[in-house]
Amino acid sequence: MITGHVFIATSLDGFIARTDDSLDWLMKHDGGGADTGYQAFIDSVDGIVMGRTSFQTVLGFGGAWPYPVPVVVMSRSLASSDIPEALRDRVEVSAAAPADLMAGLDGRGWRRVYVDGGQVIRAFLEARLITDMVVTVAPVLIGAGKPLFGGLARDIDLDLVAVRSIPPGFVQVSYRVK
Amino acid sequence: MITGHVFIATSLDGFIARTDDSLDWLMKHDGGGADTGYQAFIDSVDGIVMGRTSFQTVLGFGGAWPYPVPVVVMSRSLASSDIPEALRDRVEVSAAAPADLMAGLDGRGWRRVYVDGGQVIRAFLEARLITDMVVTVAPVLIGAGKPLFGGLARDIDLDLVAVRSIPPGFVQVSYRVK
Repeated sequence: MITGHVFIATSLDGFIARTDDSLDWLMKHDGGGADTGYQAFIDSVDGIVMGRTSFQTVLGFGGAWPYPVPVVVMSRSLASSDIPEALRDRVEVSAAAPADLMAGLDGRGWRRVYVDGGQVIRAFLEARLITDMVVTVAPVLIGAGKPLFGGLARDIDLDLVAVRSIPPGFVQVSYRVK
Repeated sequence: MITGHVFIATSLDGFIARTDDSLDWLMKHDGGGADTGYQAFIDSVDGIVMGRTSFQTVLGFGGAWPYPVPVVVMSRSLASSDIPEALRDRVEVSAAAPADLMAGLDGRGWRRVYVDGGQVIRAFLEARLITDMVVTVAPVLIGAGKPLFGGLARDIDLDLVAVRSIPPGFVQVSYRVK
């Protein structure tokens, strides 16, 4: 069965990016070198589902495409022609709802999906498509920005799986969704 | 010198109460028995500053008044006559701004102040009157409610002091405000 997995960084006040999508608050606290578990995580998934904003943020970084696995961009406004030609063998666009998208990916043999971006994570949580979440909290309050969480129709109970600190001041918490 | 200290519980999505101020989501995860450090914390302060909402929530619990130290309720709408008579030797109302209030308490010999309630904590953070924060995160997403953080004019950088788990699934993080 296909499952969704979250691995994301936030400020202590729960933002994954500033209002203008910048991540300077995260980068400046990055110790560079400490193992966050990201590589093991990305090596464990068959592909990534992200939102348009996350996709465009990653594109905006320039440089080499960072993902070693296929990416699906959830968007009703993007077309395949909006994907840079060099990425079309690795990136596709889908306008499907979360459950339909996951069913389609399951049919293609995907088992573990990295679910990324605030809106997409919230939609997948609401649809009960997330199995576990690893949240890495940066030691800063930024006051405003794009939230990770918010807006659920009902509570989502979690089991704490692990907690640890990562120098120079990050806290990484891992939860299983009940 | 007088200093402000935060000790508070939130949901993983950063709420300290539901929109109707209820704490059922917190109570239901309470393991009952595990030492959260609250007693040692409350024993370390000279008094408490809280907002009107927090005060009225505590009053609404009924039962014995829970605080062993003096309480100042920050409010521009409450009058001293709104404080139940039985509490008037332990609870006062102040309409002062955070810095003025702290200066006044300093003059009365207070050294460590427990700062409680979302609005009051945010106002004290903004005024740089908080020295450290202990945040205990419950393993649940509630989707909406009264937020702990939000709305700062500029970033507040933190030093991570400690992190630990508290059965049956809480994570307690301690930060010093830089």
